[in-house]
Amino acid sequence: MNEPHPPTGHRRRRRLRAEQPIGASPGTLQPPPDALPTRMSAVGYGKSGVVERDQVDLAAIEALRRASSVVWIDVTGVGTVDVLRQLGELFGLHRLALEDVVNQNQRAKVEDFTDYLFVVLRMVDPSNTHETEQLALFVGPDFVLTVQERPGDCFGMVRSRLRDAKGQMQKRGPDYLAYALLDSVVDAYFPVLERLDERLEGIERDILDGKSGSNSVPELHAARRCLLELRRAVWPLREAMSTLVRGDNTHISHDVLPYLRDVGDHVVQLLDLLENYREMTSSLLDLHLSTVNHRLNEVMKLLTVISTIFIPLTFLVGVYGMNFEWMPETDVWWGYPTLLVVMVLVAGGMLRWFRARGWL
Amino acid sequence: MNEPHPPTGHRRRRRLRAEQPIGASPGTLQPPPDALPTRMSAVGYGKSGVVERDQVDLAAIEALRRASSVVWIDVTGVGTVDVLRQLGELFGLHRLALEDVVNQNQRAKVEDFTDYLFVVLRMVDPSNTHETEQLALFVGPDFVLTVQERPGDCFGMVRSRLRDAKGQMQKRGPDYLAYALLDSVVDAYFPVLERLDERLEGIERDILDGKSGSNSVPELHAARRCLLELRRAVWPLREAMSTLVRGDNTHISHDVLPYLRDVGDHVVQLLDLLENYREMTSSLLDLHLSTVNHRLNEVMKLLTVISTIFIPLTFLVGVYGMNFEWMPETDVWWGYPTLLVVMVLVAGGMLRWFRARGWL
Amino acid sequence: MNEPHPPTGHRRRRRLRAEQPIGASPGTLQPPPDALPTRMSAVGYGKSGVVERDQVDLAAIEALRRASSVVWIDVTGVGTVDVLRQLGELFGLHRLALEDVVNQNQRAKVEDFTDYLFVVLRMVDPSNTHETEQLALFVGPDFVLTVQERPGDCFGMVRSRLRDAKGQMQKRGPDYLAYALLDSVVDAYFPVLERLDERLEGIERDILDGKSGSNSVPELHAARRCLLELRRAVWPLREAMSTLVRGDNTHISHDVLPYLRDVGDHVVQLLDLLENYREMTSSLLDLHLSTVNHRLNEVMKLLTVISTIFIPLTFLVGVYGMNFEWMPETDVWWGYPTLLVVMVLVAGGMLRWFRARGWL
Amino acid sequence: MNEPHPPTGHRRRRRLRAEQPIGASPGTLQPPPDALPTRMSAVGYGKSGVVERDQVDLAAIEALRRASSVVWIDVTGVGTVDVLRQLGELFGLHRLALEDVVNQNQRAKVEDFTDYLFVVLRMVDPSNTHETEQLALFVGPDFVLTVQERPGDCFGMVRSRLRDAKGQMQKRGPDYLAYALLDSVVDAYFPVLERLDERLEGIERDILDGKSGSNSVPELHAARRCLLELRRAVWPLREAMSTLVRGDNTHISHDVLPYLRDVGDHVVQLLDLLENYREMTSSLLDLHLSTVNHRLNEVMKLLTVISTIFIPLTFLVGVYGMNFEWMPETDVWWGYPTLLVVMVLVAGGMLRWFRARGWL
Amino acid sequence: MNEPHPPTGHRRRRRLRAEQPIGASPGTLQPPPDALPTRMSAVGYGKSGVVERDQVDLAAIEALRRASSVVWIDVTGVGTVDVLRQLGELFGLHRLALEDVVNQNQRAKVEDFTDYLFVVLRMVDPSNTHETEQLALFVGPDFVLTVQERPGDCFGMVRSRLRDAKGQMQKRGPDYLAYALLDSVVDAYFPVLERLDERLEGIERDILDGKSGSNSVPELHAARRCLLELRRAVWPLREAMSTLVRGDNTHISHDVLPYLRDVGDHVVQLLDLLENYREMTSSLLDLHLSTVNHRLNEVMKLLTVISTIFIPLTFLVGVYGMNFEWMPETDVWWGYPTLLVVMVLVAGGMLRWFRARGWL
Repeated sequence: MNEPHPPTGHRRRRRLRAEQPIGASPGTLQPPPDALPTRMSAVGYGKSGVVERDQVDLAAIEALRRASSVVWIDVTGVGTVDVLRQLGELFGLHRLALEDVVNQNQRAKVEDFTDYLFVVLRMVDPSNTHETEQLALFVGPDFVLTVQERPGDCFGMVRSRLRDAKGQMQKRGPDYLAYALLDSVVDAYFPVLERLDERLEGIERDILDGKSGSNSVPELHAARRCLLELRRAVWPLREAMSTLVRGDNTHISHDVLPYLRDVGDHVVQLLDLLENYREMTSSLLDLHLSTVNHRLNEVMKLLTVISTIFIPLTFLVGVYGMNFEWMPETDVWWGYPTLLVVMVLVAGGMLRWFRARGWL
Repeated sequence: MNEPHPPTGHRRRRRLRAEQPIGASPGTLQPPPDALPTRMSAVGYGKSGVVERDQVDLAAIEALRRASSVVWIDVTGVGTVDVLRQLGELFGLHRLALEDVVNQNQRAKVEDFTDYLFVVLRMVDPSNTHETEQLALFVGPDFVLTVQERPGDCFGMVRSRLRDAKGQMQKRGPDYLAYALLDSVVDAYFPVLERLDERLEGIERDILDGKSGSNSVPELHAARRCLLELRRAVWPLREAMSTLVRGDNTHISHDVLPYLRDVGDHVVQLLDLLENYREMTSSLLDLHLSTVNHRLNEVMKLLTVISTIFIPLTFLVGVYGMNFEWMPETDVWWGYPTLLVVMVLVAGGMLRWFRARGWL
Repeated sequence: MNEPHPPTGHRRRRRLRAEQPIGASPGTLQPPPDALPTRMSAVGYGKSGVVERDQVDLAAIEALRRASSVVWIDVTGVGTVDVLRQLGELFGLHRLALEDVVNQNQRAKVEDFTDYLFVVLRMVDPSNTHETEQLALFVGPDFVLTVQERPGDCFGMVRSRLRDAKGQMQKRGPDYLAYALLDSVVDAYFPVLERLDERLEGIERDILDGKSGSNSVPELHAARRCLLELRRAVWPLREAMSTLVRGDNTHISHDVLPYLRDVGDHVVQLLDLLENYREMTSSLLDLHLSTVNHRLNEVMKLLTVISTIFIPLTFLVGVYGMNFEWMPETDVWWGYPTLLVVMVLVAGGMLRWFRARGWL
Repeated sequence: MNEPHPPTGHRRRRRLRAEQPIGASPGTLQPPPDALPTRMSAVGYGKSGVVERDQVDLAAIEALRRASSVVWIDVTGVGTVDVLRQLGELFGLHRLALEDVVNQNQRAKVEDFTDYLFVVLRMVDPSNTHETEQLALFVGPDFVLTVQERPGDCFGMVRSRLRDAKGQMQKRGPDYLAYALLDSVVDAYFPVLERLDERLEGIERDILDGKSGSNSVPELHAARRCLLELRRAVWPLREAMSTLVRGDNTHISHDVLPYLRDVGDHVVQLLDLLENYREMTSSLLDLHLSTVNHRLNEVMKLLTVISTIFIPLTFLVGVYGMNFEWMPETDVWWGYPTLLVVMVLVAGGMLRWFRARGWL
Repeated sequence: MNEPHPPTGHRRRRRLRAEQPIGASPGTLQPPPDALPTRMSAVGYGKSGVVERDQVDLAAIEALRRASSVVWIDVTGVGTVDVLRQLGELFGLHRLALEDVVNQNQRAKVEDFTDYLFVVLRMVDPSNTHETEQLALFVGPDFVLTVQERPGDCFGMVRSRLRDAKGQMQKRGPDYLAYALLDSVVDAYFPVLERLDERLEGIERDILDGKSGSNSVPELHAARRCLLELRRAVWPLREAMSTLVRGDNTHISHDVLPYLRDVGDHVVQLLDLLENYREMTSSLLDLHLSTVNHRLNEVMKLLTVISTIFIPLTFLVGVYGMNFEWMPETDVWWGYPTLLVVMVLVAGGMLRWFRARGWL
């Protein structure tokens, strides 16, 4: 193991569902208590070039939207419900979609709300090993709206490609931008899997080198937890991607479909790898258990061999330690040497017998 | 484990099927012996506002139905067969549906009886950890009829939303009410799963801290039972929800479908979580067994080391405890100190050998 | 375990296929050697009431068929091949269907032979725990023909409903009678599963109370065998029922379909329960093994603690049992009490060490 | 185990694919090195009766084909490539089909080559427990061609039914003959499964009677190998049969379809049984392991009880074997009897304690 | 084990994805750091015969393409990005396809890019046991383009068949060449599986002969890894082949489809075998563990028998080694012989008891 992993007992306590009470109206936006305050940045682009604005308010977004052919609003944190609601009104978003944005534990899915496409999925935090955060993505005719849980994402390269006047991005519509974002999210899983791969190989090396002590299984257990977490994030993504690729919506143009199909292939590849690692962990567990078992056998064999040799000898010396008046053997001078010879013979015979049974 | 769970041996004895004899006529309504007497409450609403009536009889229901655009009758207990039969006649319910209402162990399903939609599903009791009770739901053109096994449900929020004159509920039809009820039933599973999650983490913490005694596995077994129970309740719900969402019935209007799809997503999320917990329990079992196994190994090693060191020494002191006349070693003054040195050397050599084999 | 189960080794030797040689003509009717002689009873009913005849011959059946609108012939035992062949000719049955009737190990299936519907399935014997026998069922335009392997069935209630002049049965066609029979067969599985449920709970109680000796696993094994047997009987029934419900045959009228769908729901419920019990047995096995393992650990710990405390002490007393001339410790008066104190200190230190490691 | 099984280590070395080099032309017919020389027999039949010819050459086959309405050529051994090639030309067979005939490790499949139907499947050798050989079957408008690997098959009954002038066979076409052959192949699996069933019951009896020594697991392993082999042979047969039954080819007439459906049912029944036996072997393994485990526990308990009782007593007698000058207990006359009483009390107390813990 | 396998810890470090940063433009071709420089060879053929050119540049390829009806360009190594890009422009390849060619960890797939068909799959290296490399295959109207990772492939036979003027290859189009290449790739897996089969049989023999020491499980683990690797390579091939066979593209002519279907059958056969081996490894693991377990039991039994016999005897001789003044037994002449007789009786009784319990 060349990388420490956080103790599984102390990780962030996570609510499975939002805070809102059971049966509340679907319009209720109740962010989780630890949600960060909402901050927005916007990028507008088109034939006239790129305009980038950090920390914008709604008015600025509206102005930018009018000025550019495509605008990308990137929202971080879902703590400020009012801003989200106003944003929803500005872009005409359905209240169920908004609720899904705020509830931070959605299953990846794609929904077509006629006026825009709504995608929700989980993305790995590049600064963190296997925590995932939720990303909501709206693709409209002239906008892309992304909502992330926390700052820090894997969109750095997309941002710099947007700034590149000679690149494809500026000439394409919001569907191509959405593709680039989805591609980044999916590709960001690969380094995480690579690190997992290294971790499993470290465990394997430890076991094969006989260095696996009591911590191999907790490490395997942690890897298994991590795999489960990742699988739960990636598995529904497959279905979502195949919904997108089927191409029966108006928001994805025809020449972007092959690119999305490529992303879908990567998702399937991720699932293949996760499945592989799962089988690997189970094979490693078997390997570890059999190694440990083998060592226990060795210990038992040694104990048995030594006990079996010395127990009869100890009995013999006990016999001649008795204080009976009449013990003729103890009175003759050859008693002691004879007994020594007998004991050597007994021990030697036993050793030979053990060797014949293949125990030594 | 921060929460006691009822001993699995003492839970309520449950009949798999109703009491009626094998092959009885499908019209026979034979409630289980412990069924509660039937009590009804009704809520009528529409443009003219809301009328709420507790403990109503059939005449009052009929009057309320005529006066309001939508009426919700909530029945608790299936013990009084006559009332149920009359209710069935009043709303024109099929006798097979009525039989399913009384038989308290139905699989979740949706059936379209042309005049109304019949939904049956299991709902968790909010006051109880993982007991589920059956909820039958009829959705007609102007009524919603719910039949629960016991008092106590998760519809509190729906009732207060109905009373809210400014809310959506009063303006919508019975399909929206049915959605709100189904949503409450599904969302009520999440706190149950959260508690299960905590329980599993408690077990995990115990195992990793080495505090898992003999009770970790019974606790895992209880969690597994609970998971099985929940899965049996939720699994068929998925199919039922997808039947509803397919929208090929006339009782669900088009603008309620996205809401139902949202409920369906939550059901799939529940199943994902249940599957996750299932894998987690199996991983925890492996972890526990390997921990226990490791401890057994330690015990065996210690026993072997101590036995192996002292058995030969004990043999040696036994030799010089013998009462032979002629034992030259015992007669010289340096016999005793020499033996002591020899024994120290033997013990030291063994310790070194064990250290070289990595046992200490 | 509150109910004895027959030793699995002594159950009736069962042939997987009929006695006929490999490749014999499909018309060959070769009953198994232990087949009972064929006996027939018949019930005719219609507007003119019910006529019941026990022990009838073919002529009587023909007369009854002409006199009533629907006739139900119930055949018990397939030993008398001639009678079966004549019966086949009388009702125009295909020779492959007749062969399936005689071969007592068919998989449940539904086949539409244009003139009649042929259903074959396995039914539990109410007098016996988990033996199943084959039931063949022909549904024609004016007849229902059932062939059972042995006397004793679960149709008592259907027979009495037929006699009831006010009931539905007399007014309905042969499809309704077939439904009632299928419903009885399916419902008869539930008591068997209830008994299995009790058996598993008995085993669970034994394990949790620490009373599970060597017989828990053989009992679990027997339960597993029983589950396998039941699953093999019920699983193909699901497919058969869904074929029936699809309703693309002319022998089932439209208003009987909801009833059959209800039977199909019960079959799925049975499969859910069987799956549940299967997981339960595997969880119980884990529970048992870990209990046994835990007890072994306790035993080993005790052995180790006692050995580890006494082995060094025994060595010490051995040292002072040696007969060396020159052993200064043995000559002073405080030698003995000092050694006693040393031994108490050694033992006490070890006990403290064991307590610190959590072994006591 | 009432039947010896061949040691798994010595079975016939089997090549997975034919001998031809990777990437060779599909026309290359390269039989395996141990292929038997090709021999042919032919049966022609029709309205004019039956003509049977053993050891025929191609000219004789052509003559017989002209003279009869249907001709069945049965080829044994694929060693003589030239004869097979000429036969292929005579009946217009595709070279890919011929390659499949020679390559003796095909997966069961059905292919429609317009002019004829090509079926390949594996058949059990009736003289041998669980060796399977390949059978290729061509069904044309006026011929059936079968190619077997070795002499010895399960078609004896079919041959005698062909000779029977009053039977169905002579009047029917090649599709009915093909059905009869397929039926024989499938039915020949049942006795093999019956023997496997007996074997598993033998193992079960041994385990339950406590007679399972070290050889139960190797026997289970051999049974599992055998099951795997059979499953690999039968599983693809299911798909092949359902292709045949779908009936979208011109070589199977409509009235033969019910017969083929019957064969398909038998294949599904075989798979059910194989699945059953698979679960049984895993249940038996659990049973065996727990039995062995239980016995180990008994051994450990006995060792612990005896050690725990005698180790303290041996220590006590060691104490009074010491040679200290000043040991007041040894000088009084009641020292010895007192110690004896103390030791009896210690041993008795321990026995009582063990009994209380349920170890005795 | 008759064949050494490379230690799993030292195998080539493999990147899961290409080197390009997350979110890079899809046009970016970033080969892995250890990619070999690109080298090309070309074969043109048609009615006018065959022209073979090694080490060609792009101009030569263009010339050859104009001169022949079909041209096969075989590219080895993806290190020289410029050449690949120019090649892509020459044949009009999509930049996503080119990216897939460079990224050396694709899942097998078939994509129809209207102008050409793109197939990517993994191929085993014939010189190496179970390393796989990626093969990309483009099939256009007049060309086949293959890109391999490393030199060394399984196309030797295809090359010599191309040179054969009388063979089919020269007369057929690029689809037949593509078939021949795919066939070679798939058939090359069979020898790998044969070697795996031998390896598993070696392990089985070792276990059954009792020679399985601590290395059986690591060997099984290595075999399992190898199976996982192969399965990951072959499994997606199945889907890819069935896409090809479905024949809804214009690049595969109708008479090549049966050949491709044959390749698809081989892929399914491979998967059957892999599944078989997987079950075999798990059965072998059970066999090994039970063998080891059995041996441990033997050891424990022996230890118990010897301890149980000698511990009481040693206690007895200890009793008479005590130095009490008043021990009447020691003073009489028959004390010693009597004790010897008693000890023989005790030992004999114990041996008889062990024999009765079946331990000896």
